Amino acid sequence: MPNSKDKEAFLAVYKLIEGEIVSDIRNLPALSDGVKQQLIDYYSECLPYTVPGGKMTRGLTVIKGVEVLRGRELTEKEYKDAAILGWLVEWLQAFFLVADDIMDASITRRGSPCWYKVPNVTQDNAINDALILENMIYQTLRRHFKSHPSYVQLLELFIDTTFQTEVGQHIDTNGTPYADGKRAPLDLSRFTLDRYQGCVRYKTCYYSFYLSCALALSYCGYDPESDEGKALYKKAEDVCMILGEYFQIQDDVLDAFAPPEVLGKIGTDIEDAKCSWLVCKALELVNDDQRKVLVDHYGKHDPEGVQKVKELYKELKLEEMYHAYEEEQKTACDELISKIEPENFQELFKFLLGKIYKRQK
Amino acid sequence: MPNSKDKEAFLAVYKLIEGEIVSDIRNLPALSDGVKQQLIDYYSECLPYTVPGGKMTRGLTVIKGVEVLRGRELTEKEYKDAAILGWLVEWLQAFFLVADDIMDASITRRGSPCWYKVPNVTQDNAINDALILENMIYQTLRRHFKSHPSYVQLLELFIDTTFQTEVGQHIDTNGTPYADGKRAPLDLSRFTLDRYQGCVRYKTCYYSFYLSCALALSYCGYDPESDEGKALYKKAEDVCMILGEYFQIQDDVLDAFAPPEVLGKIGTDIEDAKCSWLVCKALELVNDDQRKVLVDHYGKHDPEGVQKVKELYKELKLEEMYHAYEEEQKTACDELISKIEPENFQELFKFLLGKIYKRQK
Repeated sequence: MPNSKDKEAFLAVYKLIEGEIVSDIRNLPALSDGVKQQLIDYYSECLPYTVPGGKMTRGLTVIKGVEVLRGRELTEKEYKDAAILGWLVEWLQAFFLVADDIMDASITRRGSPCWYKVPNVTQDNAINDALILENMIYQTLRRHFKSHPSYVQLLELFIDTTFQTEVGQHIDTNGTPYADGKRAPLDLSRFTLDRYQGCVRYKTCYYSFYLSCALALSYCGYDPESDEGKALYKKAEDVCMILGEYFQIQDDVLDAFAPPEVLGKIGTDIEDAKCSWLVCKALELVNDDQRKVLVDHYGKHDPEGVQKVKELYKELKLEEMYHAYEEEQKTACDELISKIEPENFQELFKFLLGKIYKRQK
Repeated sequence: MPNSKDKEAFLAVYKLIEGEIVSDIRNLPALSDGVKQQLIDYYSECLPYTVPGGKMTRGLTVIKGVEVLRGRELTEKEYKDAAILGWLVEWLQAFFLVADDIMDASITRRGSPCWYKVPNVTQDNAINDALILENMIYQTLRRHFKSHPSYVQLLELFIDTTFQTEVGQHIDTNGTPYADGKRAPLDLSRFTLDRYQGCVRYKTCYYSFYLSCALALSYCGYDPESDEGKALYKKAEDVCMILGEYFQIQDDVLDAFAPPEVLGKIGTDIEDAKCSWLVCKALELVNDDQRKVLVDHYGKHDPEGVQKVKELYKELKLEEMYHAYEEEQKTACDELISKIEPENFQELFKFLLGKIYKRQK
């Protein structure tokens, strides 16, 4: 039986879900064959372009979670169920990324043009496609889990996580006024660690870490409404919030300091005026002269200015602070994880921590 | 007790739902007071701007539906429940309109700037706001109906209707290539009555007509999975598809021919290269010379060209054809409605037909 390490088997389940969705379109009533064929052709391009192709960690985490909770190799049915739930997390991510790329006016994603940049897609189709991707989560969930005792819980987990992520997106968008004056002049006062933490928690931690763990718990019958269940979900959430914040701060530090050939892309957080951990931390530490470097150069597409900002980060020893922070988070996670029961569920969080501790890309 | 005619009472229920949502935001964990207040201020502007303010027919239809199914005045609890479901249909519409206005690059809506055009909103916030509006439907549904026997049915009705409307939006977007060449040159071959009917069914009929009726049925305990229930929902769907198509064709005819002072806006379907019933019907009837008028002038912002298209519509006697069509649809509806049981449920469809038959705006 395939397990959480088997990417080929996981991708085979993607193909299954895609096939079911295409077949749904084929069965839509009261449409001419021509219109149906256009829809099928379009979504047969859209789905493989937007859904698979990432690292699939979020999806595989659901399988890993069910494995550690069961404490044994999964049955065929369990593997398939867990893989479907895993893909629905990937589908949720695809929905967010298609929409975010439009909102952020991004150009490339996973090394290819963003979906809305693909010829004959255009922005107005892509907004609707993001909505359709979201909807497919619930169609697929119903198809496979309608009679599962946790159906409503699973459904509500996706709904709640979507809300949390959208709140995070709002905080992010309104904390990062466009430097080009599209919205307002750059307002450094919004780059506080406080706001940063709230933003990361909502925009990243829930959907990238907590959702997969909670789905595994729910699928395995842990009831979040019972006293015992509530405590368990809460512990999982606490660990995931730390893991997610740590992951995002890493991301921010790598964006500025990792060699592009290792990172696989050229970081542009400074140019894009992102609410990065680095700028928030810097603003806590700067004197007036140093602050002026940020006022003058943050959020501008000017290589010399970007260099000056990076030099300021070095002057302020932010990389060293990050390494100290990294060790602290590792210790805090180890501590929290060791208190989780059932004990085998600890394995899941150790697996996640292992994926990110000291990562270089 | 208020009834389906009482707009004031209905609006009071809107205020209740808005208050609950603001209070949800106030209770979000791990956000600073400053960030929370920004979120509250923002959505306290967004919700009243985007959700109420329409004719509210879709929402009031749910109340009317529950009234006719109960066959008596509603209790306080029933009124509130039906009004909440009604508002959720209005919320769904708000979500679609905010997103559609961005996709269509519209300027005004209900006499005010479209939400994405409001200063300090901008397009990237507005896309996210559309998503948040959608999510609030499910949060509110859970708050008020979690323990209702039809909870899952109600939830799935919203999910399915959302999918249907998004399919319609896709057909619409890809059947109306931008005349300004943003996507592709105007392709008149896509303006067929066939495509038109599919588009209207999916984009309009389900969410504007069927959803409200089906919610009333579901709330009153009619099970769409039972044999009897299935037949009833199917009959409601059949009537709603005719009503919705008729409503949309009216809309298209009014856009070209109603006096702007009666209609309350200046129609621009010709300029915007919309897949209107008029252009589809015209293309079925034109000779080569007449076709050239459409090729030359459809989809262009040129008053003289628009006038020529309208003259062609008159030459082809499209208004007369429309009036004949109107009578046919009226007869078809009367026929279908008379076969619906329980008999009191017929009142709901007569009410809907009464709202649109021979309307002037």
